[in-house]
Amino acid sequence: MSEITSAQAYAAELGLAARGAAEQLPAINGARKNAWLGRVAELLVERSVEIEAANQQDLAAATEAGLSAAMIDRLRLTGERISALADAVRQIIALPDPVGEVISGGSRPNGLQVSRVRVPLGVVFFIYESRPNVTIDAAALCIKSGNAVILRGGREAFHSNLALGEILRDALRQEGLPEQAVQLVESTDRALVGEFLARGDLIDVTIPRGGKSLIERVCREATMPVIRHFDGICHVYLDETAEVEMATEIVVNSKCQRPGVCNAAETLLIHRRALDRVWPTVASELSRRGVELRCCEDSLALAPGAIAATADDYRTEHLALILNVKVVASLQDAVAHIRTFGSAHTDAIVTESVAAAGCFETLVDSSAVVVNASTRFNDGGELGLGAEIGISTDRFHARGPCGLQELTTYKYVIRGTGQIRG
Amino acid sequence: MSEITSAQAYAAELGLAARGAAEQLPAINGARKNAWLGRVAELLVERSVEIEAANQQDLAAATEAGLSAAMIDRLRLTGERISALADAVRQIIALPDPVGEVISGGSRPNGLQVSRVRVPLGVVFFIYESRPNVTIDAAALCIKSGNAVILRGGREAFHSNLALGEILRDALRQEGLPEQAVQLVESTDRALVGEFLARGDLIDVTIPRGGKSLIERVCREATMPVIRHFDGICHVYLDETAEVEMATEIVVNSKCQRPGVCNAAETLLIHRRALDRVWPTVASELSRRGVELRCCEDSLALAPGAIAATADDYRTEHLALILNVKVVASLQDAVAHIRTFGSAHTDAIVTESVAAAGCFETLVDSSAVVVNASTRFNDGGELGLGAEIGISTDRFHARGPCGLQELTTYKYVIRGTGQIRG
Repeated sequence: MSEITSAQAYAAELGLAARGAAEQLPAINGARKNAWLGRVAELLVERSVEIEAANQQDLAAATEAGLSAAMIDRLRLTGERISALADAVRQIIALPDPVGEVISGGSRPNGLQVSRVRVPLGVVFFIYESRPNVTIDAAALCIKSGNAVILRGGREAFHSNLALGEILRDALRQEGLPEQAVQLVESTDRALVGEFLARGDLIDVTIPRGGKSLIERVCREATMPVIRHFDGICHVYLDETAEVEMATEIVVNSKCQRPGVCNAAETLLIHRRALDRVWPTVASELSRRGVELRCCEDSLALAPGAIAATADDYRTEHLALILNVKVVASLQDAVAHIRTFGSAHTDAIVTESVAAAGCFETLVDSSAVVVNASTRFNDGGELGLGAEIGISTDRFHARGPCGLQELTTYKYVIRGTGQIRG
Repeated sequence: MSEITSAQAYAAELGLAARGAAEQLPAINGARKNAWLGRVAELLVERSVEIEAANQQDLAAATEAGLSAAMIDRLRLTGERISALADAVRQIIALPDPVGEVISGGSRPNGLQVSRVRVPLGVVFFIYESRPNVTIDAAALCIKSGNAVILRGGREAFHSNLALGEILRDALRQEGLPEQAVQLVESTDRALVGEFLARGDLIDVTIPRGGKSLIERVCREATMPVIRHFDGICHVYLDETAEVEMATEIVVNSKCQRPGVCNAAETLLIHRRALDRVWPTVASELSRRGVELRCCEDSLALAPGAIAATADDYRTEHLALILNVKVVASLQDAVAHIRTFGSAHTDAIVTESVAAAGCFETLVDSSAVVVNASTRFNDGGELGLGAEIGISTDRFHARGPCGLQELTTYKYVIRGTGQIRG
């Protein structure tokens, strides 16, 4: 009982502090927010040794706990990585301040001047994996967009996050911004997350990053809106007219350039009439790069070393060098497959036909529809957002990469000279 | 058990049918949607007598059930009202098609052409009060924005809605649009609503309109995003420099022009240094119009016939000719009161000071912040949206009046010439 009460009290304390800061942040201009970003970058470099020492504690615990080499690598902060992190913060300085942007506006017949003005969402509760660099990135994006943020990082990065959180708060104090604008959850108790999710009165949006079970739990318990970052079951469709060389490059890049991320391709669809002409070259190039091909009957016959796909494969986000392959009779069949098996994340067509490209663009309803390019371009940096806090798989509010704009909402400002309604 | 099963099956049937239509609607161009709107307007006029006959059944039942005169009036459809409804549908024809609008876009350094393109949300579940005209308005807005809609109107309008639903569906069939795009819940069983709220897999957004308990229930049970339409506890603040005549006109209009709606003012805040100069005139004009004044101590002394306000009054949406009045020491105090007691719906300042106007605009975070005009202008028609399906009191996705744009989301369209990521 007393533990529950203290968890409740802790969530309330952080939530109220963040809410208080969020009320002050919209009035802080871009220059002051940029000064804070600059100060964060400076402190990162200045305190590089302390950060590495804290990180060493996490690395030692991770090694002892037997974490995978990949996880340990994601956890590691070196002098070079800290310096790159400082550079990433400085790049956010150059992005335009979203707060105060006039999204649309004009005069009404009665002379009222109406503008829709971008304002911060308020308080962001951000839950993320054990990658300490994300602590800095997320706080930088939230403060630049005028939001207060409650950071709940993975427990493996606990000590690193404490050191980084101190920098974020010190910089707020030094630059005269509300210190409470960044709150670090200094506990890795999972039950505590529920106490934050219950405070829809204090928190405006929760952004969970990590495993599917975490995101499902957050969606179930949250009393505020959630920006979900779910599966990427992404497709490349080779249309009847696909050119062999372009098809090969795009499929290989979509699958192999970084197979473990959400915008990597999981399934290749091939128009029946392109099969003989295109597939042998694509298959041989994929095999050469160690990709396991899980094929339908028709594509299997032309791909030495491939294995038969199961129905489940087409619904699976492999996140590995495995590619499902299926032959379709038409573009419409490809679209139907994508609708049934896809996750509306990123889907690409390779075609020489302008009609096919237009048809695919209209009929496929994914956060990114790509014509003649790699699926890997559905990314905040690549699309010009500058940086992203996640890639939304929702349709509501924010879709695809979430950058500064996606962390805002708007209000109407109506300026009159005494108008009343008749 | 069998009733639950059949309720589940019914929700699934309507949801699947709507989902199927929603997959076809994005590809239907604006001219065809406008042809449908024109056909709906024609059928309304052609079948005016049948609609009135169906409406008579509802009116008879409502009279027998002892509904208030105001409720019966909202339920009533006359030939004149049906003709006005047809005109309202024709006005939606003139609004630009939101689907396919390029919201932003440009070329990336690698030559990729990126556009953010507006697309429909998908399937809208709309729950609304017993006003049959809303059946037509809502369907018109949903179809024009490319969404399928499941309509669940108030039970008092049951027969009227059946007649109107038939027109909507007949027009879809006649114009070759997917007939399943408009689904009418032909049952007034409240438990059935829960079955729809459970189908986040088939329904993209629920928009509940009506009493607070309905909206709270929907938020609790919904497995999809909800656009809420909650309280409007709106303020008018008379700043130190407020001009007497303008202040009087704006306060009277905000309170009296239509006291039963969400953008009517509920509380008047007055700067202490404007009190003697402004308040007696404003108070006398309000009293003359039958407004009950519930005052703080300082304002009470200057308003003959006023009564003392309780703390609860300042949190109450009266929706009647009752106005809370409070004297504040500064603009900052006015802002603090609005933050504590308001509902972030619509708040206005009357001032001659450009500094005060700017400060109020920045510090007040409501869906509409109004300078020197009536709060009654926070309305889709008045702000140039054309028509609205509700006024959102949420911060997420849509804020304030929800018109065609607010019923959409977007996708990224990325056009390349073979680009891959390095």
